[in-house]
Amino acid sequence: MSPPARFERVAFIGIGLINGSLAKVMRRQGLADELVACARRQATLDKALELGLVEHATTDPAAAVEGADLVVIGTPPGAAGAVAKAMAPGLSPRAIVTDVGSIKAQLIEDVRPHLPAPERFVPGHPVAGTEHSGPEAAFETLFVNRHCILTPLPDTDPAALARIEALWRAAGSRVETMTPEHHDRVLAITSHLPHLIAYTIVGTVADLEQHLQSEVLRYAAGGFTDFTRIAASDPVMWRDVFVHNREAVLEMLGRFTEDLTALQRAIRWGEGDKLEALFTRTRAIRRGVIAEGQAFDRQALPDRPE
Amino acid sequence: MSPPARFERVAFIGIGLINGSLAKVMRRQGLADELVACARRQATLDKALELGLVEHATTDPAAAVEGADLVVIGTPPGAAGAVAKAMAPGLSPRAIVTDVGSIKAQLIEDVRPHLPAPERFVPGHPVAGTEHSGPEAAFETLFVNRHCILTPLPDTDPAALARIEALWRAAGSRVETMTPEHHDRVLAITSHLPHLIAYTIVGTVADLEQHLQSEVLRYAAGGFTDFTRIAASDPVMWRDVFVHNREAVLEMLGRFTEDLTALQRAIRWGEGDKLEALFTRTRAIRRGVIAEGQAFDRQALPDRPE
Repeated sequence: MSPPARFERVAFIGIGLINGSLAKVMRRQGLADELVACARRQATLDKALELGLVEHATTDPAAAVEGADLVVIGTPPGAAGAVAKAMAPGLSPRAIVTDVGSIKAQLIEDVRPHLPAPERFVPGHPVAGTEHSGPEAAFETLFVNRHCILTPLPDTDPAALARIEALWRAAGSRVETMTPEHHDRVLAITSHLPHLIAYTIVGTVADLEQHLQSEVLRYAAGGFTDFTRIAASDPVMWRDVFVHNREAVLEMLGRFTEDLTALQRAIRWGEGDKLEALFTRTRAIRRGVIAEGQAFDRQALPDRPE
Repeated sequence: MSPPARFERVAFIGIGLINGSLAKVMRRQGLADELVACARRQATLDKALELGLVEHATTDPAAAVEGADLVVIGTPPGAAGAVAKAMAPGLSPRAIVTDVGSIKAQLIEDVRPHLPAPERFVPGHPVAGTEHSGPEAAFETLFVNRHCILTPLPDTDPAALARIEALWRAAGSRVETMTPEHHDRVLAITSHLPHLIAYTIVGTVADLEQHLQSEVLRYAAGGFTDFTRIAASDPVMWRDVFVHNREAVLEMLGRFTEDLTALQRAIRWGEGDKLEALFTRTRAIRRGVIAEGQAFDRQALPDRPE
């Protein structure tokens, strides 16, 4: 028999895009008797209540987790350690704690020391998101057909792990496990570096002379439009990702800038053959991504109004 | 009375995504009596005939333009000069010649000397495209609500310019004019640099150790998936863009790498406040792009299967 994805009282610490969407999934599927949200700002909680994401709301982490058999940490990664500490007094040792952070090694190091039962902490990362944030951005199908990576430690309770796996499967995700360090390296290149680059180029445009900038916005072609969407992601969350996954990001960034410098040189010296060879090779990677089902042929879905 | 968008015999030199789509528009709206395609490879012409994009096809540029009152150069930009030279013997001085190239200054310099009536050459750039290429990628709505930038010279025949404007308006585009040099600078940052960066990062992944690469493809998150799509664009066309718009691309690339180096330093030194400040500023640019109608809120249109 599969382990139950169902819980009695679930406390969401942070109630933005990810936790809000998970709350919607659990409510719709009847996976919890009671849903509680905790956030720093009362306005966020009011919005979560108004949207019907949860029935209870409090700004006090310890009160939020009181009586909960599942706690989902969904704050920006840099705040996870502090909220773990703050909620600890109310936390039952029988509660399963999980998180949805985009970085794992540093977050685990920050959170575990505060938990009464660290072996019932199941670190997780649903690889899903949009450029929108806050409870009003939540939607129920966010996790469908997306990967959810769990990064249990050697001492993680297998029963707790199995229940979190069942929860994400119920949300529609493909669940995988790997070590926290491996997760951070893979995500550094698939997600963190692309975001960093998108933020950079959009920032470069923000610094352009005013008359040029207004024309850039006006004629934003395919490439730049995609970048602005990525660079509209939650600033605090991404600040924490780069600061807390520093080593993996800097390593991948080093590889990238070496490659970019080589291309710059090829352009300066008019070495068209080198450019064409690379551009041909990158098409194969696109085919690989499509084959893995992470993208589909979007010709019929242009990202602009028609 | 508006100038007529209608022509008798139209010769498309090159029949890929852009020229193929324009052929579909002209056929559907009855904007031409006869459509002719010219390409280097017979297989491309066979495909264009099979798809019904044109009625006539030849590999000889001079034969293709014989009797044409409109010639549309849609080759990779680096080939435009050579095809202009090759077609010149068949070209009537009364014919209007236009092009659809992504770069303008160098292309104009390459093409004009070969034309019998350079003042009837109207350089143009429909700012539209997908990552697909070839005649089979053509579709009729490609230009709808997209900008088409025309870059006439001081001696360009106003009547010829007006007819090309009317043609693109008929295709659904918003037509603008500017100097070739200004076009090349604006496009360097909105389109050329984003493509260069996307090609680079996808190339960086292509060089990763095999085991890491396969996981990158597997967990390709939002950011990287978008980059692979951009980096699947036509290699020859993009090679020509970078080689022929070298100065503007290198200037924008210089600004970008300075900004990226500053971010790299902020990450290394854990300066979260600097990162957050930039990431907050870039959100405003996204709003600018959306306000200009070049993107719409895509939350409801995820680019992955659901």
